Amino acid sequence: MHDLVIRNGVIVTASDVFRAEIGVSGGVIAALGHGLQGRESLDAGGKFVIPGGVDSHCHAEQRMSGGVVNADDLFTATRSAACGGTTTIIAFALQPRDGTLADIVPAYTERATRCAVDYAFHLWVTNPTETVLRDELPALIAAGHRSVKVFMTGKTNWLDDLALLRVMEVAREHGALLTVHAENWGIHQYLGEKLAAGGFRHPKYQAVLKPAIGEREAVHRIASLAELIDTPIQIFHVSAPEAAAEIEAAQRRGVRVHAETCTQYLALSAADLNRPGFEAAKYVFGPAPRSNAERGSLWDYLKRGVIDVVTSDHAPVNFDAADGKKRWGTEPNVDQIPNGIPGVETRLSILWSEGVARGRISPSEFVALSSTNAARAFGLYPRKGTIAIGADADLVVWDGNRTARVTNADLHHAVDYTPYEGMELTGWAETTLLRGQVVHDRGRYLGHEGQGRWLKREAYDWLKPAGHFPSGYDPFRQVVTHPDLQ
Amino acid sequence: MHDLVIRNGVIVTASDVFRAEIGVSGGVIAALGHGLQGRESLDAGGKFVIPGGVDSHCHAEQRMSGGVVNADDLFTATRSAACGGTTTIIAFALQPRDGTLADIVPAYTERATRCAVDYAFHLWVTNPTETVLRDELPALIAAGHRSVKVFMTGKTNWLDDLALLRVMEVAREHGALLTVHAENWGIHQYLGEKLAAGGFRHPKYQAVLKPAIGEREAVHRIASLAELIDTPIQIFHVSAPEAAAEIEAAQRRGVRVHAETCTQYLALSAADLNRPGFEAAKYVFGPAPRSNAERGSLWDYLKRGVIDVVTSDHAPVNFDAADGKKRWGTEPNVDQIPNGIPGVETRLSILWSEGVARGRISPSEFVALSSTNAARAFGLYPRKGTIAIGADADLVVWDGNRTARVTNADLHHAVDYTPYEGMELTGWAETTLLRGQVVHDRGRYLGHEGQGRWLKREAYDWLKPAGHFPSGYDPFRQVVTHPDLQ
Amino acid sequence: MHDLVIRNGVIVTASDVFRAEIGVSGGVIAALGHGLQGRESLDAGGKFVIPGGVDSHCHAEQRMSGGVVNADDLFTATRSAACGGTTTIIAFALQPRDGTLADIVPAYTERATRCAVDYAFHLWVTNPTETVLRDELPALIAAGHRSVKVFMTGKTNWLDDLALLRVMEVAREHGALLTVHAENWGIHQYLGEKLAAGGFRHPKYQAVLKPAIGEREAVHRIASLAELIDTPIQIFHVSAPEAAAEIEAAQRRGVRVHAETCTQYLALSAADLNRPGFEAAKYVFGPAPRSNAERGSLWDYLKRGVIDVVTSDHAPVNFDAADGKKRWGTEPNVDQIPNGIPGVETRLSILWSEGVARGRISPSEFVALSSTNAARAFGLYPRKGTIAIGADADLVVWDGNRTARVTNADLHHAVDYTPYEGMELTGWAETTLLRGQVVHDRGRYLGHEGQGRWLKREAYDWLKPAGHFPSGYDPFRQVVTHPDLQ
Amino acid sequence: MHDLVIRNGVIVTASDVFRAEIGVSGGVIAALGHGLQGRESLDAGGKFVIPGGVDSHCHAEQRMSGGVVNADDLFTATRSAACGGTTTIIAFALQPRDGTLADIVPAYTERATRCAVDYAFHLWVTNPTETVLRDELPALIAAGHRSVKVFMTGKTNWLDDLALLRVMEVAREHGALLTVHAENWGIHQYLGEKLAAGGFRHPKYQAVLKPAIGEREAVHRIASLAELIDTPIQIFHVSAPEAAAEIEAAQRRGVRVHAETCTQYLALSAADLNRPGFEAAKYVFGPAPRSNAERGSLWDYLKRGVIDVVTSDHAPVNFDAADGKKRWGTEPNVDQIPNGIPGVETRLSILWSEGVARGRISPSEFVALSSTNAARAFGLYPRKGTIAIGADADLVVWDGNRTARVTNADLHHAVDYTPYEGMELTGWAETTLLRGQVVHDRGRYLGHEGQGRWLKREAYDWLKPAGHFPSGYDPFRQVVTHPDLQ
Repeated sequence: MHDLVIRNGVIVTASDVFRAEIGVSGGVIAALGHGLQGRESLDAGGKFVIPGGVDSHCHAEQRMSGGVVNADDLFTATRSAACGGTTTIIAFALQPRDGTLADIVPAYTERATRCAVDYAFHLWVTNPTETVLRDELPALIAAGHRSVKVFMTGKTNWLDDLALLRVMEVAREHGALLTVHAENWGIHQYLGEKLAAGGFRHPKYQAVLKPAIGEREAVHRIASLAELIDTPIQIFHVSAPEAAAEIEAAQRRGVRVHAETCTQYLALSAADLNRPGFEAAKYVFGPAPRSNAERGSLWDYLKRGVIDVVTSDHAPVNFDAADGKKRWGTEPNVDQIPNGIPGVETRLSILWSEGVARGRISPSEFVALSSTNAARAFGLYPRKGTIAIGADADLVVWDGNRTARVTNADLHHAVDYTPYEGMELTGWAETTLLRGQVVHDRGRYLGHEGQGRWLKREAYDWLKPAGHFPSGYDPFRQVVTHPDLQ
Repeated sequence: MHDLVIRNGVIVTASDVFRAEIGVSGGVIAALGHGLQGRESLDAGGKFVIPGGVDSHCHAEQRMSGGVVNADDLFTATRSAACGGTTTIIAFALQPRDGTLADIVPAYTERATRCAVDYAFHLWVTNPTETVLRDELPALIAAGHRSVKVFMTGKTNWLDDLALLRVMEVAREHGALLTVHAENWGIHQYLGEKLAAGGFRHPKYQAVLKPAIGEREAVHRIASLAELIDTPIQIFHVSAPEAAAEIEAAQRRGVRVHAETCTQYLALSAADLNRPGFEAAKYVFGPAPRSNAERGSLWDYLKRGVIDVVTSDHAPVNFDAADGKKRWGTEPNVDQIPNGIPGVETRLSILWSEGVARGRISPSEFVALSSTNAARAFGLYPRKGTIAIGADADLVVWDGNRTARVTNADLHHAVDYTPYEGMELTGWAETTLLRGQVVHDRGRYLGHEGQGRWLKREAYDWLKPAGHFPSGYDPFRQVVTHPDLQ
Repeated sequence: MHDLVIRNGVIVTASDVFRAEIGVSGGVIAALGHGLQGRESLDAGGKFVIPGGVDSHCHAEQRMSGGVVNADDLFTATRSAACGGTTTIIAFALQPRDGTLADIVPAYTERATRCAVDYAFHLWVTNPTETVLRDELPALIAAGHRSVKVFMTGKTNWLDDLALLRVMEVAREHGALLTVHAENWGIHQYLGEKLAAGGFRHPKYQAVLKPAIGEREAVHRIASLAELIDTPIQIFHVSAPEAAAEIEAAQRRGVRVHAETCTQYLALSAADLNRPGFEAAKYVFGPAPRSNAERGSLWDYLKRGVIDVVTSDHAPVNFDAADGKKRWGTEPNVDQIPNGIPGVETRLSILWSEGVARGRISPSEFVALSSTNAARAFGLYPRKGTIAIGADADLVVWDGNRTARVTNADLHHAVDYTPYEGMELTGWAETTLLRGQVVHDRGRYLGHEGQGRWLKREAYDWLKPAGHFPSGYDPFRQVVTHPDLQ
Repeated sequence: MHDLVIRNGVIVTASDVFRAEIGVSGGVIAALGHGLQGRESLDAGGKFVIPGGVDSHCHAEQRMSGGVVNADDLFTATRSAACGGTTTIIAFALQPRDGTLADIVPAYTERATRCAVDYAFHLWVTNPTETVLRDELPALIAAGHRSVKVFMTGKTNWLDDLALLRVMEVAREHGALLTVHAENWGIHQYLGEKLAAGGFRHPKYQAVLKPAIGEREAVHRIASLAELIDTPIQIFHVSAPEAAAEIEAAQRRGVRVHAETCTQYLALSAADLNRPGFEAAKYVFGPAPRSNAERGSLWDYLKRGVIDVVTSDHAPVNFDAADGKKRWGTEPNVDQIPNGIPGVETRLSILWSEGVARGRISPSEFVALSSTNAARAFGLYPRKGTIAIGADADLVVWDGNRTARVTNADLHHAVDYTPYEGMELTGWAETTLLRGQVVHDRGRYLGHEGQGRWLKREAYDWLKPAGHFPSGYDPFRQVVTHPDLQ
């Protein structure tokens, strides 16, 4: 007798599609079969049942680079996630430039008790002091925070190459995955000066300010640093095909570079930045959306597995309400518009619409890109990311045929707009279960604050260094194996 | 109450690894879970349980290119398969050069009723007459034979480019996958003459006679023909990295070229051809084994998914017993040694040893390469190739830790030798179930002749043409869409 | 005291541009400097002086593949060459399918005594009989005919891979360069059947009948054969960028594959095949002209040196006059229109217009592509192809600024049309000198029949095999060096 | 009547090889021919006559990065150049970190009046202040200093990306070529700390400290910056094939990236760093010498023209004599050994030995790599770099067959060692003429201090921007042409 049986669904995993009932007991998937007995029953109505989404790139209740605080707190952001079919997020514990990680992580942990879905944090290092590197990071990683984030651009957050290497070394030695915002800071500064000098202020100049070349450059650079010290990394929000090409080249050299892209790079384009006046500000985020042709080419890299995760980079900035809003001053100015857009709730629907509904990917590939691969990359698998005996019963009844228009009124975040307003999407989460509990059904949020749990992550296999240095030496190990230096 | 419950196993699919019991009813997988009830029970002892192997390239009871008849009949070959953990094979219905397919398929069908595991046939076209193309192939494909094989080399079997295109067109129009033995026939003839003139007879000259260049050339050519008429193909037994590189290039152009390699290209090398006297004859097959460096590089293509199926190309030729044997005449002569080696029973163990045990692939990748992908490629999925509710209960208890030496006395084929004699392998099939019936356990064959069933194959999705011609025209559809000719 | 001094010119060679007078004595360049003394003087008027063009691909007085005899005889073709600034051509001695080379070469030699510029022959093998291979080719090569041509397509001319290898071996062993018409014959046959069955007859279907894929395939194949036996080859009339990409890939593997393209592939496109009715027939040649985008991409390969020779493939077929004309029957039928167009006289002007005048190449690169490189490739250098002391005084006063429209009335061939009619070209030959004699001036032919001389060619350095086989063995030398077979 | 006639030589230019006399008048090449009349005569004895070498990367009388002053002053360095067959050098005017270019250029100009061969300066910017960028560079470029150098690594010299872009912009706008020392500074710092912490001090750790990855990274980055603002650059001393591959990739994208390598990367390897004790210090320079395999692969890039200039990077540091010497302290310490080695005199002989004598390049390619291409790249052509009428009579009688051992006693620099001591080289300068004056003959220096002249360089064609931005916008021109932003 299971707690719950989901009947009449078509189960989709990263490799299989089959009809079966799912028996849930104690919050985990306990049985797959037919004729299962349960105290409760949920009829999937012949629709797909997929693993709950894992959104490994999600900002909430956090001060952003421009000093703006997110419109969403950790509850509203995760409520929104749940209603979009996502049952796990990874948010950020952001070191203040003049502070430490050790202080900030407990604070985030406290705030996160309000989360509506399960969660973890990336440790975001903005100032790798001796203390941070030697004491704080090792302790936090050992405590179960198995990912570290760094920025290569941005006035207050960027790290130079030496700092990047130092953080990377700690991640390697103590077993955490380094994730990277990869854009070139010098290019940004240079073009910013040019635009300012020329009086180019319209939000569309975001596309000029953050060119594909700057992204490609930073990707090649961080991949080179990872190659040097033989450690895996993940690149956040790859938007330009030429940057993806560098990732593929690194992968073929044997460097363990993983990559995500975000739904905005699959659904929006630079043309959106050309909207009149403040409307354009709704599309200001970084890296900038690319041309339509580039957007199409990104799919080649998704299909070849070069990019294997699709997230939202949910960065909830209001358009008009409250401080730190997009509509700032009397005329839009690309320099002053806070970067970032909301998207945690629309993520799965956009990926299905652009991917499965348009014949680019299969339902199994959809599951891999939206859930399984992120769970694997960040040490959450097999608890999250699949439908298998023993996994958490994070399940979504997915209506692959439903087509509806996005409107902000229907969304559950705290942001006053969505950049996808009016867009017709195919594929919607009908019902969402978190560890066997229904938390969302047909647009209604049915969960409650604090329902989410922190996910402690153990060291996982693929964080291990390969044990050799591609360039033939290992200064860490004090062994020099250069072929000509024996 | 299931017919059978497999307890205490670690299930491996192409994407997941998890502990669960498997309930089998009516020959299919009916339940996954814990505490399942069954009339019978099988204890997996904590070992892996994997989907039965699918060997999509297997000769038996067939006249080979040199006129030799296989040492194995369809029973002994499939008995051997079962004992190695393989529960489905695809054999060949070979058109005699002066005969038709329509005659030969019923004959093979009759003979195959003796099979010990489930089976299908590739329709092997050696003479694409008007009758074969217009009448026989369409009828046979419609009847459920969804794959067609052609040879690009070999005195009696080779087809020229025009013939290849004609066969390919029929496969495309009627929904079958074309599979190809890709080597250049002119190069073979030319080098054969040179070797004969120079008196080079030792079996090692097989490596000279069948160079990597000849394989690469044929692969590029058949991929070009497939690109021209926009249809999927599979390349058999890719052995040279430079041939695999051509396949990858075609895939990146959007051509749907799939590829297999065989265990001999992962476990043997040209050095084996250099053994003294007739010993070398045991390693004569085509394409020839490559150098050790090339063998290692093949793994890059397996890992990137360029090659996604590993088969045995079981071609059972005796060494010493009976006619058509390897030991022919008084001195070995590369020109007269029948090509082909047995391998259906050792396939999984070699792939695990070289792959999983050496850290090159994961258990899930092993399952994909040995079972799932072949089932998908040839229209057998989801009935075969996975462990999911509703799939045939073709299951193998797999001991991933057992290490043992291969000896021909332990094998169940009818061939008098194995090229892997004495090789120490890690990973062995402990128990094999065919549709829920134990047919092999710890080296003993427990099934019976005729236990296998023919697998009728329906048209499957990925045989559909993409609907456009990459080069911009479609003479079939009588529509010309060349951009400059409107 | 020189026979002639050319004053006031700007000399252009493949590497240099400088002002100097040229002193000519005894038909050769005897001095470069200032204040030279000469019996005669020619004022270049501040214009360029370039080496006379070398057109290494030129048909005249020859039966073509469709059975048509060229409209030009060897005199009219070479008169036309001279008036266009070309002072050396290489024509063809074509073996009749049922005849021998030994018979035909003397006949061509006899006819060629009428030539107006210097000349050589490619030995065109259409039937490599034992006699041709063993006796005729070695003797003819030794006599100074250092190039051999083969066709990979065409009903009466195509050779299969075995035949290609045999001819290639003779060229390698006796010191001649193999040049190749590379298109796939099976594809041609197959598409021809499709077009015929569909009633597609308009000349525009030439673009369908001879697709880029067929060219790419043949290029990869012949490059593979050349790689196998380690010998240099040249590919004629490369038209498709994807074929050029295969050539570049082969060059990077170390295979000595050289390539030419022709002016028609730089100035015409498939759009010309879309002209109404018989007008389109004026653009029927093989390979077919490609799309405009492909035409533009060819320049990348010219600039990188992958393609290093630009010829005319002058194939003089009348439009309306006499037998074998383009206007055949009452309606155009792509199957019956003889292939080939005239172009020997317009070659340099087209290359300058499309290349130098449009900023794609420099004057020195123009000289290399139109003269120096062809002379080097075919053993005519340093006698032909440059302006240096001791070279033949084949010189052209070149007006790089003159712009004029092409009209057939102004050309000196015997063909009744030019495909470039009405095209405005920049860059024209003002005066042409053959070994110091003015043979053309400002559109007037001033030479005489029989003024040209046959160019006996010695074995030249780069025909030598590299001395090793890339694949590790050399059956010719009866040495086997495969790394695993020692 | 010429001032001088060089008789009996075989002239080699970048494209041609021919026998002719050279008439020299007024210091320039006035005639090529036979039977020339001259007041003086020089018998080349049947040897080659080549254009005087152009060494565009040569340090002398300059404070180096470690604070060391070169052992050579501008006279001894150029005397050494002349004796090695080099008649033009480009040295450096180095901005002190706390000083300006405006002060230093007159000082260098004054010192350089002692030069023994013709010369120019690269303006080396180490601190791009507003004054330097706005005033000094434009004025100096306009005055005829048409090249600017920057460092991407090194404590006192490195520039960050913003600074690089600013300098690059000035070079672009005012018409100078930017040349770059491309290595990653963060990697250097990081590995330096690791080595210091690990007590790795032997000079061999230079190979660890300056890995190929760091060079590749910097090359990709600077090429990206050049791509962004559409301007040509040159990369100094490319040593790693993987860095050269990035240059080739950039060239194929249409970025105008040129590159040099130096003779040390063709003749030395990391194995030289493994010599015992201080001996190894003789091979400390940056980038570090690579493995033997990498050294061999560099030739592929030279042959394809990716790298088109070979210089010496003459950086004259004493081994034992005087301050700033290689033998520093009691034990060698990689951190304290001044970088750089002498090589201006051995450059041509090493290039001929490794290149022509070993069959890798032709004599014409040798001339292009050692003289013509550098003259073109830096605005010295056609005055320097070729043998043509009107060019300076900088000529070398080159004995391509002479083989001799290098010994420092025979060299004419002021350094107390040569890293090539004892190496047997084939190909030596027999006689060197500077503007028609013999300055060296068979090892004896026959010129005099102050014989060289400064070479004022005008703006030259290929410095012009292409006029479009590859990424679709031009902030300089205040025109935004992004395809999606119109």
